[in-house]
Order: sequence, then C-alpha cells, then structure tokens
Amino acid sequence: MTARRPKVVIVGAGFGGLTAAQSLARAPVDVTIIDRHNFHYFQPLLYQVATAALSPADIAWPIRGILRRQKNATVFLADVTGIDAQARMVQAGSLSIPYDYLVLATGATHSYFGHPEWASVAPGLKQIEDATVIRRKILLAFEHAELTDDANEQRRLLTFVVVGGGPTGVEMAGAIAEVAHHALSAEFRRIDPHSARVILIEAGPRLLPAFPEDLAAYAQTSLERMGVEVRTNARVTDCTEAGVDLEETQIAAGTVIWAAGVVASPAAEWLGAEHDRAERIKVEPNLKVPGRSEIFAIGDTASVVDSDGKTVPGIAPAAKQMGRYVARVIAAEVEKKTSPGPFRYRHQGDLATIGRKSAVVKLDSIHLTGFIGWLFWGIAHVYFLIGLRNRAVVAFTWLWNYLTLQRGARLITDGPAEQATARDEKARPLPSSVEVSQGPERNQSRLGRADWR
Amino acid sequence: MTARRPKVVIVGAGFGGLTAAQSLARAPVDVTIIDRHNFHYFQPLLYQVATAALSPADIAWPIRGILRRQKNATVFLADVTGIDAQARMVQAGSLSIPYDYLVLATGATHSYFGHPEWASVAPGLKQIEDATVIRRKILLAFEHAELTDDANEQRRLLTFVVVGGGPTGVEMAGAIAEVAHHALSAEFRRIDPHSARVILIEAGPRLLPAFPEDLAAYAQTSLERMGVEVRTNARVTDCTEAGVDLEETQIAAGTVIWAAGVVASPAAEWLGAEHDRAERIKVEPNLKVPGRSEIFAIGDTASVVDSDGKTVPGIAPAAKQMGRYVARVIAAEVEKKTSPGPFRYRHQGDLATIGRKSAVVKLDSIHLTGFIGWLFWGIAHVYFLIGLRNRAVVAFTWLWNYLTLQRGARLITDGPAEQATARDEKARPLPSSVEVSQGPERNQSRLGRADWR
Repeated sequence: MTARRPKVVIVGAGFGGLTAAQSLARAPVDVTIIDRHNFHYFQPLLYQVATAALSPADIAWPIRGILRRQKNATVFLADVTGIDAQARMVQAGSLSIPYDYLVLATGATHSYFGHPEWASVAPGLKQIEDATVIRRKILLAFEHAELTDDANEQRRLLTFVVVGGGPTGVEMAGAIAEVAHHALSAEFRRIDPHSARVILIEAGPRLLPAFPEDLAAYAQTSLERMGVEVRTNARVTDCTEAGVDLEETQIAAGTVIWAAGVVASPAAEWLGAEHDRAERIKVEPNLKVPGRSEIFAIGDTASVVDSDGKTVPGIAPAAKQMGRYVARVIAAEVEKKTSPGPFRYRHQGDLATIGRKSAVVKLDSIHLTGFIGWLFWGIAHVYFLIGLRNRAVVAFTWLWNYLTLQRGARLITDGPAEQATARDEKARPLPSSVEVSQGPERNQSRLGRADWR
Repeated sequence: MTARRPKVVIVGAGFGGLTAAQSLARAPVDVTIIDRHNFHYFQPLLYQVATAALSPADIAWPIRGILRRQKNATVFLADVTGIDAQARMVQAGSLSIPYDYLVLATGATHSYFGHPEWASVAPGLKQIEDATVIRRKILLAFEHAELTDDANEQRRLLTFVVVGGGPTGVEMAGAIAEVAHHALSAEFRRIDPHSARVILIEAGPRLLPAFPEDLAAYAQTSLERMGVEVRTNARVTDCTEAGVDLEETQIAAGTVIWAAGVVASPAAEWLGAEHDRAERIKVEPNLKVPGRSEIFAIGDTASVVDSDGKTVPGIAPAAKQMGRYVARVIAAEVEKKTSPGPFRYRHQGDLATIGRKSAVVKLDSIHLTGFIGWLFWGIAHVYFLIGLRNRAVVAFTWLWNYLTLQRGARLITDGPAEQATARDEKARPLPSSVEVSQGPERNQSRLGRADWR
C-alpha cells in the first residue's frame, strides 16, 4: 500500500464545500465532508419553496447521492460543535474527526442587528426548514383570516411585510403578491385574497443596491405594478406579533419575513480568528486562516478582498470559485507542486426575478429586464440545478405553474413552528360563531377589485 | 332571495368527506368541510413518501384548490374538538359551526392494542407527517450506522422491523428492502447498506389476509426473494428503543414501523354513540348514527354491514362510495324526494405492490402477479391521483426511479421527531474517534454480497 493519504475535512456541503469536495476527486487525499443535513440544496430557489411553487425535494439532493461515485469522499451527517486546532480534530458532539487540511464552509445565518428576539416573529430564509416555516406562516395567514369575523384582525392577517430590498426580499415580495393575487384567488369564501397587502421595506434609498440604478428602478416599478408597496429609506425599529414598527409609523402585519442581514456561522468563534462585523473570518489572499496554514475558510464564512482589490460578494458563484481554488491549493501542496497564485474572483453577473414574466439581469454591460430577463433567469437556474431529474421536474413544474397560475406545493405540514402557531391560535380571539354567507355584497367587493389582477 | 339553504357540515376531507362534498355540488345546500390539514392526500401512496420515492406534495392537494369551482362549498382549516348534538353545533376550539346535516368522516389512527407507549417507538403510517417521520427514521438509521464503530449497534441500526402483514406492511417492507439494496448501495463508505435486515412480522398464519391464498403466497415469495425475512404466527409482546420482543425471541432493531391495527378517531366519543371494538360508530343501513337522523358517519369512522350482509372494509373505494351515498340521501331529503335504499357496497378488487416490477391484484376472479400486476397497479394509482400535474409528476418520477434505481426525495428535514432524535443521539454512545479506511476487506465484503442485488 502507498503512504497514508492526507485527510481533508470539509465542514458544510453548500456551494463552497461541495465544490471543494468534488474538485478534490482526483487528488491523492481522503475527503470527509460533514454537514448538519443529509442534503445539499439550491439556495437561489429557496424563495420558491417558501411561496409554495416548488417542493423541498425539487431543489435538494442527498449529499451521498452527489458523491456516490467519488471513491475518495466520505459523507458524515453530524453537527460540528468546535475545532481543536492544536490536535487537528473537528468536534461533533462526542465524535472527533482528525484532519490534515480543514475547509470551513459553514455558511451564514440571519442577522437581526442586535435584536435576536425578532427571530421568532420574523423568520429569515436560509435553510430548507426556514422555507417550510415561511410557507406555513403565509398559508396559515389566509386560513386564519378566513376564520375570523374581526375586520381589523383580518386586515392584519392579510398584511405581509418583507424586510430587506436585496434580491431575496424582491423575490419574496413578488412571489407573495402572486400567491395572493393569482394562486389563491377564488379559493376563499369569506375573504378576498386580492385584498392582501404586500409591503417591501428597505432601509437604503433604493432596492437592489448591488444592481445598476436602471435595473433597480425597473424592479421597483414592476413590483408596484404587481401590487407590492415599496418603502425605501424606511428603518425597522421593532418586530412583534402585532407587526412592524418603522421610525414614523406602525404596520399591523400577521407575517413578517426577514431578508435584511446575514451573519456568518460560528467558525470564527471556534478558531478565535479575526473576523469582520458580519463575523466572517478575515482570510489571507490564499483563503487560509491567518496563522493556520492547514485551515481554509470559504464562501459566506470568509471575508475576502481578492487580488484585484474587489470585495467578494456572498453569492453562490463566489463560493464555488473559492471551493475550486482551495482544492487546487491543497492538491498542489500534497503533490508538492507550485501553489496557485492568490485567489481571484470573477464576477459573472447579477440576477433577480420579480415575478411571473419579469426579472432583472446584469452581465457586464448587458442589462436585461422583463420577459427576456425572466427567460434568461429561468434557463440559467434550471441549468445550474444539479441532477437531471430535478431539472426536468422543476422545468415541468414551472411550465405548469406558468400556464395555470397555480402552485402545487401548498402544504401546511407540522414542523417546529407547529407548537408556536398552536399557541398563537389560542391566544388570538376567534369569533364564537361563524355564519357563512355568500350574499351579493361579497361579489360586489370582488368585482370592485378586479383591477388588482 | 330564496329561503335559507340547509347547512351541511362535513368533518374530515379524506376520501369519504371530500367525495361527499363534491357530490353535493348541485344540491341546494351550503357545504362546509372542516379538516385539521389544508390538504387532501392520497393515502395509498403514503408508503412511497415514507420510503423517499415521492415528495409529500406529489400525493397531496390543497382542499381549497380541489373545491375552488364549487361555489356552495366553504373550507375551514380547524381542529374539531367536539359536537353539541342538541344545539347542532360543531366545536373547534372556541369556534362553533352550526349544521343542519353533519357528516363525520374523521378517519382512523393507529391502534397499539392497549400499548399506547409503543407509539413513540414504532410510528404508524396514516398521515403525511407520519410518512416524513418514518422517512427520517429510516434514513437516519443508515446515517448513524455509518458513524458508529460498535458492530452490534451497527447491526441494530441496520435492522428494520415492520409489524403487520396487511397491504401497508407488505408495501413498507418491500420498499425498505429496495432502499437498502438499491437506492443507497455504494453511497456509504463504512457500512454496507446491502447488509440491512428487513423483517416483516405478522401475527396471523399468512400475509395479506384479505387476499386469496395464492396471491398471499406469491407476495411472501417475492418479498423473500428481495431479502425480506417474513415471520408469520409471530406476536409482538413489547416495543422499545432497543427493538421488538416476540413471544419466544427478541429482535434488536433501530427502526420499528407499525402497520398492525387501526382505531377510529374519537367521533363515537363526541356523540356517545354505540361503537365496535375499533371505536367505529355502528351506523344504520342508511349510514345515519342511530337516534340522530341528521348525523351520518362514513369511511373508517363507521362500522357498516351493508344490505348484502357484507362487512365493508376500511379502504378508499368504500369511503368514496359512502360519501356519494350520503350526498344522495341528503339531497333527496332536502329536495323532499324519495330517499335511496340502504347503502350497498360494491367491492372492486384488492391491490398491493411488493416492489419494483411486482404486485398482487385481485379483481373478481382475475388474479394478477409480477410485472403485469405491477403495471396494472401503477396505472390504476396514477389514474386515481387527483389533478393532472401530480399525475404527470408521479408518472415521471416513477419512470425515473425505475430506470435509475434512485430515490429523489431523500431529505431528512426537521420535524416533531427532531427533538426526540436529537435526544436519542446524545444518549447513544458514539465512538470517540473515527478513522475512515477503504481497505481491501471492505471491497471483498461487498463483492461477497453481490448476490443480494
């Protein structure tokens, strides 16, 4: 047998970690990839799960399935709790996993800017579980509104606030407006889903700060045409069960979704490494943690200014490029070849979808909007989905949703949120008796709102 | 306006309740259908969700979506807690819903024959949530086995026991064998999924007691060829975290699935009505609750001996026939026409699938087995799925799974079971250090088991 092969341990199977593992397929190393979940998921489409257009399984794949043919890769389902950098061991509860090289690709989570108590009221959208919690919240808001006789409570339940005007916020606001104004229309007898308000709040002066101004303006106009109220220069001062407080006003809302800030997972803390305000580890130009030549941090775990002086954004293509880069560095060191130069980020473009038939796309000097932008967005996303099966199912589901305006994945299933919601229900006053009428007033009110469509 | 229309309240949107609601579409009544979930689901395919072949959304549809065009139908998402038969009110928490006619179609749940403490160890398969809990348990067993160095614990984790040899038990056992021997093969580095044991336990002398003997014998032979150990005349005396106790032996098992008995939901208790041992209400020949000419019980809620003297089985076609029947009775009474004669059950056949390319079918005098039976089973099930979208997705997914031997819906997501599992994990001793080797022994042991395929 040959000499003992170096062990590369990768923590996190998101875009960065998974790409690093795959890029090490031919390197003379043993790879162990550890994740809290048994699946890798396609985060850019998470908002479609949250708004009931796709099922979780449509955008997620078992990590083992992806790596089944890669003989030098082992997958562990475990929750990493710390790192013993002296002993070169990853700790996951009572489990210790030794490494020669360590790649930290643990991603990011929501940041509530010093208000962790908002988390229970205003869920963010990072994990598959977040998406099903938000889906549940949105769908239950309509269900509870149908059951109440209190007009104020009904209005509150049918008000949806999205905090944060980046791509996720824009996509969520557009998708909720579509759910209310198309998918659920005609399904309720006592409320009119068309009357739902969707409010998008952004603290800065405009939406999509990473995009050029013309595309941001286009996105705002498109959202407004879909019935979304866009409020820029608006800062959230409190989030409660009752709704959202801004500096000058309050919005009574049954559903608040947080798309405003992210913070890196505790990798910096594990190592005691220097980090930026978002707790991302400040890495060296070769993505190594300062002072630790065997530990890398990539993706949302790392704060990177590349060799061109550009700050690398926290998006999927950047994480994948970093994953490929560290694999090259490790392979070169193991094979005693010259190490590649410092990491260099290639920005490929920015994409955000607004709704059915509308998206904004920036590729170098090309700006696409409207239907063409949407087509480009759809093709790019289906292309990047791993696995032929999912590509075909997602393409089929989208075509179906597009033609029928329906959403197929509208299940309210039990989850960690169940207990909380059950408690809410008891706290909320419900009418003691419900009379269902389908009188002419109701039809009139619906006709009066036909322009919403 | 016309006179006040009678209110028909239906509790439960399973096969019986939903069919009753749909069959009242043209009757001069207002229908309110109440369910704890916002979706109707296709229970016969639940085992495919539990074994990761299909996603929950593939076999479930929002009740509102199904009834959106039925103008006289209102859908409430609520958990019915009791019935005030004097006041003619359905109670759902603080909500009271008045009725003129009441249809109880609340279905059944698992029965542990006087051992409710087994429920937490041996989940049954009735609800969508049950299916995701079981899916999680099965997939986690393989994950935990991969992480442990204790050979006994590994063997225990890779032992799957299904209790109950009816159609659900047969289908579950066959599907778990396929997951272990095909879908997961080659995905683990430290365990061999082929070595998993699947044991099907039946207290009676043979499998599928409702089927003819030749089909039951065929099912047993097919299962055994797939590697399932079938034990008939075996009675479970205890279920614990460690496994299952039979009268004469113990089986150490990490996963136990209960497919043995059902009991009706508490409708009989709400009314103080006479019921059989399975707590099903003993209804009159027109499916009315004795002494209550305005209350019907149907489906698994009712114990029915039809006018031909046949005991009606607890299967979907029977529930649908009862739903259609009570709709006819209600419509006749409201329109003051002659009531239809007593309920008469038409048995259409029995189907059970064993695995890929194998099923048993009985239609009157026709018995189908093997590939022909499986084709018939597949076509029949796709045909009965509500909604074109799901039909196409399920057909496509099956074709895909069939060709690739893969299973696409292998997600371990958080759920009510999460906390319990997290606790288990802490209780279970894990190795303090894991060394991953891919030595020749491992390859040999896999080659030696090639005949399992």
